[in-house]
Amino acid sequence: MQRERYYTLTASCPDRVGIVSRVSGFFSSHQGWILETSLHAQPPDENEAAGDEAAGDEAVGRYYMRVEIRADSLPFMLTELRERFRCVADELNMDWKITDSAVKKRLVILVSQQEHCLYDLLARWQAKELNVEIPCVISNHDTFRGFVEWHGIPFHHVPVTLENKAAAFAEVQRIFEEVHGDTLVLARYMQILPAGLCAAYPGRIINIHHSFLPSFVGARPYHQAWAKGVKLIGATCHYVTADLDQGPIIEQDVIRIDHTDTVDDMMRYGKDIEKTVLARGLHNHLEDRVLVHGTKTIVFR
Amino acid sequence: MQRERYYTLTASCPDRVGIVSRVSGFFSSHQGWILETSLHAQPPDENEAAGDEAAGDEAVGRYYMRVEIRADSLPFMLTELRERFRCVADELNMDWKITDSAVKKRLVILVSQQEHCLYDLLARWQAKELNVEIPCVISNHDTFRGFVEWHGIPFHHVPVTLENKAAAFAEVQRIFEEVHGDTLVLARYMQILPAGLCAAYPGRIINIHHSFLPSFVGARPYHQAWAKGVKLIGATCHYVTADLDQGPIIEQDVIRIDHTDTVDDMMRYGKDIEKTVLARGLHNHLEDRVLVHGTKTIVFR
Amino acid sequence: MQRERYYTLTASCPDRVGIVSRVSGFFSSHQGWILETSLHAQPPDENEAAGDEAAGDEAVGRYYMRVEIRADSLPFMLTELRERFRCVADELNMDWKITDSAVKKRLVILVSQQEHCLYDLLARWQAKELNVEIPCVISNHDTFRGFVEWHGIPFHHVPVTLENKAAAFAEVQRIFEEVHGDTLVLARYMQILPAGLCAAYPGRIINIHHSFLPSFVGARPYHQAWAKGVKLIGATCHYVTADLDQGPIIEQDVIRIDHTDTVDDMMRYGKDIEKTVLARGLHNHLEDRVLVHGTKTIVFR
Amino acid sequence: MQRERYYTLTASCPDRVGIVSRVSGFFSSHQGWILETSLHAQPPDENEAAGDEAAGDEAVGRYYMRVEIRADSLPFMLTELRERFRCVADELNMDWKITDSAVKKRLVILVSQQEHCLYDLLARWQAKELNVEIPCVISNHDTFRGFVEWHGIPFHHVPVTLENKAAAFAEVQRIFEEVHGDTLVLARYMQILPAGLCAAYPGRIINIHHSFLPSFVGARPYHQAWAKGVKLIGATCHYVTADLDQGPIIEQDVIRIDHTDTVDDMMRYGKDIEKTVLARGLHNHLEDRVLVHGTKTIVFR
Repeated sequence: MQRERYYTLTASCPDRVGIVSRVSGFFSSHQGWILETSLHAQPPDENEAAGDEAAGDEAVGRYYMRVEIRADSLPFMLTELRERFRCVADELNMDWKITDSAVKKRLVILVSQQEHCLYDLLARWQAKELNVEIPCVISNHDTFRGFVEWHGIPFHHVPVTLENKAAAFAEVQRIFEEVHGDTLVLARYMQILPAGLCAAYPGRIINIHHSFLPSFVGARPYHQAWAKGVKLIGATCHYVTADLDQGPIIEQDVIRIDHTDTVDDMMRYGKDIEKTVLARGLHNHLEDRVLVHGTKTIVFR
Repeated sequence: MQRERYYTLTASCPDRVGIVSRVSGFFSSHQGWILETSLHAQPPDENEAAGDEAAGDEAVGRYYMRVEIRADSLPFMLTELRERFRCVADELNMDWKITDSAVKKRLVILVSQQEHCLYDLLARWQAKELNVEIPCVISNHDTFRGFVEWHGIPFHHVPVTLENKAAAFAEVQRIFEEVHGDTLVLARYMQILPAGLCAAYPGRIINIHHSFLPSFVGARPYHQAWAKGVKLIGATCHYVTADLDQGPIIEQDVIRIDHTDTVDDMMRYGKDIEKTVLARGLHNHLEDRVLVHGTKTIVFR
Repeated sequence: MQRERYYTLTASCPDRVGIVSRVSGFFSSHQGWILETSLHAQPPDENEAAGDEAAGDEAVGRYYMRVEIRADSLPFMLTELRERFRCVADELNMDWKITDSAVKKRLVILVSQQEHCLYDLLARWQAKELNVEIPCVISNHDTFRGFVEWHGIPFHHVPVTLENKAAAFAEVQRIFEEVHGDTLVLARYMQILPAGLCAAYPGRIINIHHSFLPSFVGARPYHQAWAKGVKLIGATCHYVTADLDQGPIIEQDVIRIDHTDTVDDMMRYGKDIEKTVLARGLHNHLEDRVLVHGTKTIVFR
Repeated sequence: MQRERYYTLTASCPDRVGIVSRVSGFFSSHQGWILETSLHAQPPDENEAAGDEAAGDEAVGRYYMRVEIRADSLPFMLTELRERFRCVADELNMDWKITDSAVKKRLVILVSQQEHCLYDLLARWQAKELNVEIPCVISNHDTFRGFVEWHGIPFHHVPVTLENKAAAFAEVQRIFEEVHGDTLVLARYMQILPAGLCAAYPGRIINIHHSFLPSFVGARPYHQAWAKGVKLIGATCHYVTADLDQGPIIEQDVIRIDHTDTVDDMMRYGKDIEKTVLARGLHNHLEDRVLVHGTKTIVFR
């Protein structure tokens, strides 16, 4: 359903008295109609994790927020909003950005040879459930060219071999830049991204890993799960960092299995979890609901 | 773990520009340290439920909030806080209250002959997981007198028969008043409360119903579920109103069953859901996280 | 993964001593290698549902079984297997059938204008996760013609109006017969099937209803759920009977929502449950794991 | 509800043609009324786990079964049943046992200072949901003496220090032997059992670990989970072996958390999962539904 146009402010700053008052005061002084506000005070980590230990007096938490404002309630346009808000942000020493619901994010999909996540993402895009442009799909196989092109989306086949790995990922990056990609999603892309590529787009590359991390990192997680005899299997959507399968977790879910399930059965059940977890994580990312705090995420539902 | 003392403001008012600014401005002007803020704008119902129909221009949503403020950050005590906040509240036409984490709520438990919820609640109370006083337990059977009294909690046996129903519930109400009860929890209490008692304590009587409402209202819900052949059974924690099993839902959960499960199996699995759902709902109620909006609830997690 | 060819016996008969012995004895006498055996004794309903009442002496339960036998372990072909097994079946007064994993079932899909279930089913079919032929897709709209035909599957547009309803469903039935359909799946098909069509294919028409039945029967279940304020929403896969949304339930699942979710949000979350529940139910149906017992199902996982 | 008396056969043997026929034939030849039969053919592990590799020709799977027979349907008593069945078992090279529902298992509980699992187990025992005798509770603290003794159950305080560890566990073992314990359950017992004790009772010591294994082995798993930023936390019920937190997994479950949850919140939610998972795993163990296959379990639901 078409919602009215709105701006989304996401911000974080050192915790102190008066943050909410300052930010909400700014908007109300301009008669800005706030549609949704999410706030979270993250206590200093040492204190929290340690529990019983005394934190230093100087330990300061961090404050996170996400605010949706109806665009037509403000007496100025986005550029001026950003300019005016900069004063508030500077005062509070904020990391911040304001996005516009009328500007669709540009999502580039990387895929290998399994179709479940690709079909799922394109179905959501068709249904306008994902408010994105998909300027292209890139794959290390040519398998899904026809399917992708049928949807009117350009398809790039960039094979990856042991020898050409650097060149291949340079090409991936070149395409991503060329199409002005905002987010790169690995929809069961079975290649490990080079560290440089990961570092180039922090918080902008999203992967779906087919296990309930931190269990079963790396290759063949369903085989690992089968060998261990766990009673639930899962999937994890996370930001990609140079550290394999260790980036900040955005979303996870699990499904029950039992002793009758083979590795193939687990793969089959797992696909359902994979595509759902990826879609939920991606949806929250695209709506600017995911804020990264160190190696963890705040997800404003 | 012992948290520092804090006040909890819960409030609702007609939606308009500047509510958050006004309230957070009030606290920050007194250097009040806000620990947690939850906000929710409930759109006008007609508009929402209808979806595609145009709402009248005059339709106004309702704004809900819950704010935790560290007690020692304010330069005055609770009485003065309430007095000063009244100006803000009046201006915004608010329904509001402020509670104090140092003042334990007084929880009266009604129980019949099944022990699972009673044991569960007393275990949580022992573990200080529930921050309450339990001034007494009331039952229509004498079964759990020993168990309750062993915990140092007074036990009242108030039998209920077809003939004495009015008198019995007058006695229940008398005891509840005498011990200055805040919340009355029906921990698998197998009697229907008279309408007058329900009306006397709106939003203060909590029941656990052993089905996933609105399915299987009334008696023997597990038998109904068995007969229907559902694949999941559930439990529902809700506020009690004069309308049987129809009060605002606070929390629900389900568990998977299959064709091998008898009604007895379902009762056994169901108990686990019942006690967990009751405890979660009650916990949120006691922390003032549940706000009633008509026949529904807002639960600030 | 390709499994070896196998036969699947599904059967039910009045419960008595020696059923398993007779059936397994038959197979072992021919050196039949049993891959999987599922057995279930369904007690007489009156006894079970009533719980505390004495069942009549003559009340007899019903025995259900499903057996997979490796095809190449038997010294004869399917026709002879059926002939020989008939003696055992007659002796036990069985309803039974034997299917062959090498013969793919023929699945006809009915769809309206929502793509999520259609994309999901075709992705599973592409991945050979569903071991079926799809001889055609039928729709009351022309929306998905291109998508379906791109997959090499014939598409039939059979519009349904108030006036042509009888003729339209006669045409649906004609097509189903013409393509020798085994199973008809309503993948979010937004028309009510006439009673005659339902009766013509008992246990062969599968629907996905977008609520956790028996709650929210009929139209706009997400609006009903929103109005009620439930904390979980669900979906139900069931066999279609003439009684709307009342057929035997095959599979159900739920997902958590909260007060922030609009009807649109619920529809979006609901889709994920709908397609997964439909796929799981359909998978079990296609593997002959679902046996109907009156208004309920036995699902041999 | 009181069920009729029944015997439970649990058995495993090398897979071959005719196992079910031989066993069910034995019972039917004596007019034994089978209440429930569960069967599972476990393929050779190498084959399964490897997936694409060819298994050696000699690889043989293992067959598992569990059969409930109504005691009064057999023309002889348990001793004779065991004697007669021995011929069948020897022929099939079976590991087997037959238990009698009229003989309650003897459950010894080890607990430390957290009450949730202890209260939960005693509530189930009171409700006759667990069909056991509890000859005693043993603890390394004296905290729960009064609560346990109020239930009429003997309580043993066996303090454990760095110095007395060997002696303390010798005492635990002495008590377990003295009371003829069948199963030892660690209901949040915060000491590591010595390898010798673990080895003495394979498949008879059950632990609840407060994480979703294999994630977060060892101490302070909720702190580990908090630091990692997972979106679900879990609990695992497993048999205890000398290898810490690595024994065969019986049951697991998870619960959703988010960024607002502190370690304390996670501990609180975790308790609900811990006690439920322990109870479900223990229930299946006590009904002889759990069979150990190497480092994994078969759980006949």
